[in-house]
Amino acid sequence: MTTNKLGREIPTQFADEYGVFEGELANIKEYQESSRKIKPVKPRDTKLLGSIREAIEKTGLKDGMTISFHHHFREGDFVMNMVLAEIAKMGIKNLSIAPSSIANVHEPLIDHIKNGVVTNITSSGLRDKVGAAISAGIMENPVVIRSHGGRARAIAAGDVHIDVAFLGAPSSDEYGNANGTVGKATCGSLGYAMIDAKYADQVVIITDTLMPYPNTPISIPQTDVDYVVEVDAIGDPNGIAKGATRFTKNPKELLIAEYAAKVITNSPYYKEGFSFQTGTGGAALAVSRFMREAMLKDGIKASFALGGITNAMVELLEEGLVEKIIDVQDFDHPSAISLGKNANHYEIDANMYASPLSKGSVINQLDTAILSALEIDTDFNVNVITGSDGVIRGASGGHSDTSMACKMSLVIAPIIRGRIATIVDKVNTVVTPGSSIDVVVTEVGIAINPARQDLIEHFKKLDVPQFTIEELKEKAYSIVGTPQPIQYGDKVVALIEYRDGSIIDVVKNV
Amino acid sequence: MTTNKLGREIPTQFADEYGVFEGELANIKEYQESSRKIKPVKPRDTKLLGSIREAIEKTGLKDGMTISFHHHFREGDFVMNMVLAEIAKMGIKNLSIAPSSIANVHEPLIDHIKNGVVTNITSSGLRDKVGAAISAGIMENPVVIRSHGGRARAIAAGDVHIDVAFLGAPSSDEYGNANGTVGKATCGSLGYAMIDAKYADQVVIITDTLMPYPNTPISIPQTDVDYVVEVDAIGDPNGIAKGATRFTKNPKELLIAEYAAKVITNSPYYKEGFSFQTGTGGAALAVSRFMREAMLKDGIKASFALGGITNAMVELLEEGLVEKIIDVQDFDHPSAISLGKNANHYEIDANMYASPLSKGSVINQLDTAILSALEIDTDFNVNVITGSDGVIRGASGGHSDTSMACKMSLVIAPIIRGRIATIVDKVNTVVTPGSSIDVVVTEVGIAINPARQDLIEHFKKLDVPQFTIEELKEKAYSIVGTPQPIQYGDKVVALIEYRDGSIIDVVKNV
Repeated sequence: MTTNKLGREIPTQFADEYGVFEGELANIKEYQESSRKIKPVKPRDTKLLGSIREAIEKTGLKDGMTISFHHHFREGDFVMNMVLAEIAKMGIKNLSIAPSSIANVHEPLIDHIKNGVVTNITSSGLRDKVGAAISAGIMENPVVIRSHGGRARAIAAGDVHIDVAFLGAPSSDEYGNANGTVGKATCGSLGYAMIDAKYADQVVIITDTLMPYPNTPISIPQTDVDYVVEVDAIGDPNGIAKGATRFTKNPKELLIAEYAAKVITNSPYYKEGFSFQTGTGGAALAVSRFMREAMLKDGIKASFALGGITNAMVELLEEGLVEKIIDVQDFDHPSAISLGKNANHYEIDANMYASPLSKGSVINQLDTAILSALEIDTDFNVNVITGSDGVIRGASGGHSDTSMACKMSLVIAPIIRGRIATIVDKVNTVVTPGSSIDVVVTEVGIAINPARQDLIEHFKKLDVPQFTIEELKEKAYSIVGTPQPIQYGDKVVALIEYRDGSIIDVVKNV
Repeated sequence: MTTNKLGREIPTQFADEYGVFEGELANIKEYQESSRKIKPVKPRDTKLLGSIREAIEKTGLKDGMTISFHHHFREGDFVMNMVLAEIAKMGIKNLSIAPSSIANVHEPLIDHIKNGVVTNITSSGLRDKVGAAISAGIMENPVVIRSHGGRARAIAAGDVHIDVAFLGAPSSDEYGNANGTVGKATCGSLGYAMIDAKYADQVVIITDTLMPYPNTPISIPQTDVDYVVEVDAIGDPNGIAKGATRFTKNPKELLIAEYAAKVITNSPYYKEGFSFQTGTGGAALAVSRFMREAMLKDGIKASFALGGITNAMVELLEEGLVEKIIDVQDFDHPSAISLGKNANHYEIDANMYASPLSKGSVINQLDTAILSALEIDTDFNVNVITGSDGVIRGASGGHSDTSMACKMSLVIAPIIRGRIATIVDKVNTVVTPGSSIDVVVTEVGIAINPARQDLIEHFKKLDVPQFTIEELKEKAYSIVGTPQPIQYGDKVVALIEYRDGSIIDVVKNV
């Protein structure tokens, strides 16, 4: 057993294989970028195949290989289930899958795991029944949880080598030029898929909207694509936007949003040309609304907004309050449409968004980011992956990436949810180290990380109640009591990679 | 000495190192893509440096390394001369340079060669005094001439590994997001530079127009850039468009253009959604005009036009006769402006344009291309690199790429130029093998390659005089006499690579 810098115990086997977390930048070194095997496509060769099965056959997919998918269709994704069903029928086993994330809709995965079709998984997150099954210990090998930037890093560095990427595309031509802004199931940015397309040995585009050549705009170019398959439907447009939230009317969330907006608009970073990422969730969207009011009042415009994009951001762009949107993923239909028509709404890939091993990602230029949390502890460590019962049900996302890289990170959360404390002594699982978190914003007030004495000084007169993180925890415990420790088993069911590839925590079975 | 498939004698030393031409697709095989060493850029790191010298120092450039430049500024380029002057001052020697091409304006290169600063060159072409100096034998090592697609191939396959790319950019932000459509010296597409940016270990962006972050559109992304330097001027806008031709009034050129347009518009490929590349030059531009008339009359629209782009193409786009322009380089200011503002005018890199080792380049989808020639022989081999005196003064460009990949290639040329035959028994230097050329178009009529019996049959009733290539040669010889053989020396001054990396011919000193 090795203890990492945060005091988390990492079994030696994994510590040796991955290294353990030693600090945010301890592991950032020069490296040789990974590369792919390319089968050149000659003039007159065609890429269009008749079925997913034919594509699987053409790629020569076999036992033990690694395949990938993207999660831009979110709860509306048909692609991963279709491809895995076909692979299972063909009797291929022992695959590693490396989707950018896994949603509730991927419940059939449980059977593929039980049948030995899928034996290794890396993903940003796991939801619902899949998460519960993994936490129950159905896999022999632990799932590797990676942040969005960490996944791009792992692919670029060769830790994950994708043999075949099966990439759903809302539109494509027969030669593989694909985008997410045209078609029957538009998802907007294909930012996560673009990485797979660049590094995978073979890429199969699966589309339900075949366009004349050349299909522009081009998110994934023909030079990254081996085969194209047309199917009836790649996704459910309603599912893509599922969970995309509207402005909240919940008074607690509104209070959190108001406090967060005050922190941002009173910070040293709030000036002409500042930048921000807000993410999704009722409170996060409400922050945008409060910021809009402040920006209008103060005559201040943002140079760019980043991230997972929602209609709230698009409205700020259209109103001229945000000059540009830099977009790695869209959470609703208006955002997808905006990407297709507004030249100041710009698509980027996950490497450019957040990789710690890139020549500089956009998050490095970000002033402030608003992030969510399932739990925050008194060291400011954040858990966004396991529930209060210890079961995997969240996603790493861009949490550890953005919070580390931006100049001021805000974690917003109510101090309790139902009968459960959000601010705790020790989070069940660390996804983001406390050193990356600057301000915790709750409905009772804020706590500033003591490491940011500059912010404590700056915010002395801020019109928001201020506490230590211990005080916030005590408030939570005083309402719901001290949480009981979770009774974990002995089996490691998930490794939580920090964005640099080291292990920041492990999750055991429950 | 080895004799290649075209009967050209290749000295054993080079035959062993590169292989010799064995046929258009003989050498197209699966391969491992080359990759770069990356120094990750951390949050708060800055890329903006004070001078070109500081950038050279930061990159650690030293004797024996390979550096690259792009030729999008054409005769207006300041960058290569500035950088090489600084390198020479610093005493760095024995460099290999790999610019995408070399222009007249790069005459100072001659001194850098003589002083031992530059000891190896690869380029698409050489002009004027630099070409003459190379042909006179001032270098110990032969220059390697590569086509645009062949250069992209060589970089992707690792035959050329760029240690540092110095890339002039009409605009960039401090983090390296660069484009060619904004700035003081707009050149439009940065298609050739994009390849260097993707594969070079280190990339220095040199700009005279520093934009606020994030500078969009992004041709070269921050994730490909290590350093940014601002200088007073990177190029002369007039020089960029120099040599960009206007519609010809020369009756001979107009006749060639009329014949070429008739071949295209009467070909099996001329139908709704066809595609073409015309290139530059008076006759080529006039072809566009004749094609425009035919397309209007016949109610036919092209799906895309490709290539080096001129205003003639942009006008067809704006008129709706061409749906999309796919642009690797711009030859005039209106084209550069169009790229910046018209979403159907689309920028691509040289790999996507023409690499034979890509997963499919755009030229593979091209119906017809119009190409130029300095000489054409009775085997349909084409010389675009050496003059009738044997001196290097041309450029390989996309000639061998496009002619091979498209469905019908036209080479247009007058049968004589001044007192010199263009159609000859044997070209001085083969750049493009005759197997890639389908129709030769001259002012006296056309000759169809006997290998294309389908076209000979199809064009039986075409209202254009038709001859064999031997007859065209005889016509030329009957006017200007049989050309005298050139008296070459024994030194190989240039290797002509075919697009697949094999040697198709060599040039000796004169």
